[in-house]
Amino acid sequence: MTRKIGVIGMGHVGSTVAHYIVANGFADDLVLIDKNEAKVTADAIDFREAMPNLPFHTNITVNDYAALKDANVIISALGNIRLNDGANEDRFSELAYNSEQVKEVAPRIRDSGFNGIIIAITNPVDVITQLYQQITGLPKKHVIGTGTLLDSARMKRAVAEKLGIDSRSVTGYNLGEHGNSQFTAWSTVRALDQPLTELAETKGLDLEALDNEARHGGYAVFKGKGYTNYGVATAAVRLANVVLSDAKTVLPVSNYRPEYDVYLSHPVIVGRDGVIADVPLQLTDAELEKLQNSADFIKENYEKYKN
Amino acid sequence: MTRKIGVIGMGHVGSTVAHYIVANGFADDLVLIDKNEAKVTADAIDFREAMPNLPFHTNITVNDYAALKDANVIISALGNIRLNDGANEDRFSELAYNSEQVKEVAPRIRDSGFNGIIIAITNPVDVITQLYQQITGLPKKHVIGTGTLLDSARMKRAVAEKLGIDSRSVTGYNLGEHGNSQFTAWSTVRALDQPLTELAETKGLDLEALDNEARHGGYAVFKGKGYTNYGVATAAVRLANVVLSDAKTVLPVSNYRPEYDVYLSHPVIVGRDGVIADVPLQLTDAELEKLQNSADFIKENYEKYKN
Amino acid sequence: MTRKIGVIGMGHVGSTVAHYIVANGFADDLVLIDKNEAKVTADAIDFREAMPNLPFHTNITVNDYAALKDANVIISALGNIRLNDGANEDRFSELAYNSEQVKEVAPRIRDSGFNGIIIAITNPVDVITQLYQQITGLPKKHVIGTGTLLDSARMKRAVAEKLGIDSRSVTGYNLGEHGNSQFTAWSTVRALDQPLTELAETKGLDLEALDNEARHGGYAVFKGKGYTNYGVATAAVRLANVVLSDAKTVLPVSNYRPEYDVYLSHPVIVGRDGVIADVPLQLTDAELEKLQNSADFIKENYEKYKN
Amino acid sequence: MTRKIGVIGMGHVGSTVAHYIVANGFADDLVLIDKNEAKVTADAIDFREAMPNLPFHTNITVNDYAALKDANVIISALGNIRLNDGANEDRFSELAYNSEQVKEVAPRIRDSGFNGIIIAITNPVDVITQLYQQITGLPKKHVIGTGTLLDSARMKRAVAEKLGIDSRSVTGYNLGEHGNSQFTAWSTVRALDQPLTELAETKGLDLEALDNEARHGGYAVFKGKGYTNYGVATAAVRLANVVLSDAKTVLPVSNYRPEYDVYLSHPVIVGRDGVIADVPLQLTDAELEKLQNSADFIKENYEKYKN
Repeated sequence: MTRKIGVIGMGHVGSTVAHYIVANGFADDLVLIDKNEAKVTADAIDFREAMPNLPFHTNITVNDYAALKDANVIISALGNIRLNDGANEDRFSELAYNSEQVKEVAPRIRDSGFNGIIIAITNPVDVITQLYQQITGLPKKHVIGTGTLLDSARMKRAVAEKLGIDSRSVTGYNLGEHGNSQFTAWSTVRALDQPLTELAETKGLDLEALDNEARHGGYAVFKGKGYTNYGVATAAVRLANVVLSDAKTVLPVSNYRPEYDVYLSHPVIVGRDGVIADVPLQLTDAELEKLQNSADFIKENYEKYKN
Repeated sequence: MTRKIGVIGMGHVGSTVAHYIVANGFADDLVLIDKNEAKVTADAIDFREAMPNLPFHTNITVNDYAALKDANVIISALGNIRLNDGANEDRFSELAYNSEQVKEVAPRIRDSGFNGIIIAITNPVDVITQLYQQITGLPKKHVIGTGTLLDSARMKRAVAEKLGIDSRSVTGYNLGEHGNSQFTAWSTVRALDQPLTELAETKGLDLEALDNEARHGGYAVFKGKGYTNYGVATAAVRLANVVLSDAKTVLPVSNYRPEYDVYLSHPVIVGRDGVIADVPLQLTDAELEKLQNSADFIKENYEKYKN
Repeated sequence: MTRKIGVIGMGHVGSTVAHYIVANGFADDLVLIDKNEAKVTADAIDFREAMPNLPFHTNITVNDYAALKDANVIISALGNIRLNDGANEDRFSELAYNSEQVKEVAPRIRDSGFNGIIIAITNPVDVITQLYQQITGLPKKHVIGTGTLLDSARMKRAVAEKLGIDSRSVTGYNLGEHGNSQFTAWSTVRALDQPLTELAETKGLDLEALDNEARHGGYAVFKGKGYTNYGVATAAVRLANVVLSDAKTVLPVSNYRPEYDVYLSHPVIVGRDGVIADVPLQLTDAELEKLQNSADFIKENYEKYKN
Repeated sequence: MTRKIGVIGMGHVGSTVAHYIVANGFADDLVLIDKNEAKVTADAIDFREAMPNLPFHTNITVNDYAALKDANVIISALGNIRLNDGANEDRFSELAYNSEQVKEVAPRIRDSGFNGIIIAITNPVDVITQLYQQITGLPKKHVIGTGTLLDSARMKRAVAEKLGIDSRSVTGYNLGEHGNSQFTAWSTVRALDQPLTELAETKGLDLEALDNEARHGGYAVFKGKGYTNYGVATAAVRLANVVLSDAKTVLPVSNYRPEYDVYLSHPVIVGRDGVIADVPLQLTDAELEKLQNSADFIKENYEKYKN
């Protein structure tokens, strides 16, 4: 057995995740799972019909939970974004439906004997990640949410465009809930060898506006096409590759935080053993307060839907 | 200027084409065009928000025909597949709408001063490719349709599964219309160092059933998800890469055939100058008759919609 | 554990193999082994210093046979090409030294508990592959030589240049010893939908000259730089990827042939279980005679050096 | 014309650069130049014989300066590292020979009509880069040396290993000469959201030792194999890709510094127009002094060899 990835949920996000993996040969074996048998089967055929024109081969299995037993990574992309009407910009509108789905799926993952790393994209991702951990009984460090890895990318994109530089040349983190209570921790953000807080002054940047752009970035995309998929799928697959290759990369992802007793996004070192170590930040008091608020919000919702 | 690609139409196919290009760094500059400004803008943002987690950079321009002037390749993925109700399995049900779209788009491509290669995916692709050539006035060899590059891949997939081998280890061509009148030219298909016609006997393969699987393969996917995108997007991007790198690869694509005075799919040598040379086949009489039928069908429809 | 590859021998070929793997993220774990500790350590550092500018991470271990225990694939690139003076164009001039090396290395591979696929590049590759199989006791189908996968590529390159097409658009095989007794089996070679034997007439190709170009191609490169590395390393890594991804690709590689009781190159289906099935050819009598000669030559040399 | 790269010098570095480009399809056209016609021809054949087993096509031209006219980027890898005996660890021992070579090559580049970006790897790279600029008369911002992009990678590797993290999760710069007078500007280096100067205290890191490791890293590799190639080739190709894709990435490369009137390494924004903008640093007085020393050393040597 070499690289084996499961993808659960063949909606816009899950199928983009699967395509990105197939097109780049990131997995040798790919297990695709969806309640909509027609859709997941159609995607599998479509991928196989792409392969004669692709350099790499991927073996695709459809709707076989038993095949997850020896997977290295499972990416959960299930969910129904249509429940989110975009009006209130609240990923928690998806929670009731999605948490029910996870309660169906997670026991089947557990029963397969799966012993790898779960990467959850399903929203509201912090609560969903915790649900996956609770139900599967996997070690907390082995269940991770993409969380603000996407929002940090959105922030980098927004900052980079203002500065006229590559978004890969901006460092720093969005923290907390992958949702409305998140925030850009400006004390961690740097570009052009300067803290953004300093650059903001010399370059006349409006940090609050940039923060909003990161937070609401998803909704701009959502309003334009009814879903978002490329940014988040790219984040999830990067995270999977970091796990597979044991890269020990520092990434802001949703991980269990004992200090808050919830999953929320905070940078950690990620490798083959999941969350390998925490990366302590020196946040300002205002940032700590925002993080606490975000944790409280997640906790409240987790309590509501955990059973 | 380095590698510049335009993609027209940000539906399922066009956005998959664009994502595949962005995720692999196949283009340095990408011009995305769609009448639905909200959709194409949303996709562009989504791609930019993927980039911090991607190794390569792509500059994305939205809805700017003038930017096509110095593009190397334009991929036309416009169209409304929903017009195809799947019931009659006929790509010509899309023709009236799509030909109107092309009549709007093609003059704008021409007026941009574009001087590269057009790769058409839009269905019915043979008629649409000819329309693009006629309206833009580009040399016939510079306007190509993906045609049966996809159907040949479908045939290879079907044959390979029967034989338990890699679909890349099957060679040969589907010919004619990318539509119902197409056919697998079994006289050209080989695997395991044997003609499929011989293998069919020793392995008990039903060539007619395999031919149907290739011809109707798209509908299996279509019925499962309402569209097809991964196979055809992969074929189109491979074709674009062959053009960009002047690879001189033998590919079955829709090209102008003087002997029939229409565009239809037949293997040719493809490079930076588009269709560089024909690849004559030694078809059986039955195959030649099928090809003539296919040509007649395309011609009839082209006449109907050309003005 | 995900994708783990061992490379034994960090000369021109082995280090190119390792670089190609690292640069493309083809392996998650890479075990590099060489008697020249300084060289292999230097290469490992060099690769690690490349990684900050590479998108993928690879964990590199140096000179640790125990780490091969759970490798999926071991690529043997050990050998001393300098023993081949290029004058007599005979890979067997390397045999005495290389076979001694294999007799040192193979027992250590066996003792590590390695249970994967060995891919041998070391020359004379057919004899060396058999030595590896004999000493490790691995199933014959799990020990493969790159053999004429390279020579077939050389033949494709030579044919393609004559025809003005992409070398990927030529199919067919060189067979037998990866050495002087090999030959292009023209009955298997096709391009432009025609057998090369027919094309040779219409296009005025000299098949004998092309055959020589494939056979002596390596020496042209060898004379120019004292070694060959890029072609063979690419062939070996492609073969490794085919094994890892269980692609079931038809490839001409050195495999055990019961009919001759030696390893020699002949197309087979390759997957995760090594050589999965034979691909019978319909060779001409003259080709069969050449193959027998090649087998005899290999056998004679194997007998000389096996103990 | 799409992506066209010239590589001058087919030694260990140049041939690795070319292989990395060919193996990944980073260029459509590749012009290889070396005084040793046999070597460069052998490499070109070797690359072409790799292509049937590679997914992408690259057109290779050998020793044709006229073909550089419309190249986007020229990478200079010429040089004779053997002149550097490794004893004194001084890249300036290569200067006399290499500067003579550049004085032969640069006029021919100029006379070809080349109008793109030169990326120099040839050592001592700061002086050589300036020579290229002076002789070709290209705008200063269009002639760049890889400089401390490699040394910064070496520093990141050394720091990352101490911290048990991915070297891609360390940011910061080595500055000055790509040679003995360079230094790690610790005031710019960060990991785990902290300045290295702070981390050094809490984690007990010896910054001086790490600085030495970056500075002498090349010599460790050099001593082990007599040259270094993978790290520097990767840096050079990354730089080329940043230029081709106009990524506007912040990179420490050798660029003309008006304040010192020499080329030396300092972070700048790099894009299709070469060095697009400077990235001012807030160096400590000690660091500024080291940078001045480095500039003085480069200037002195430039004066010696410029004519």
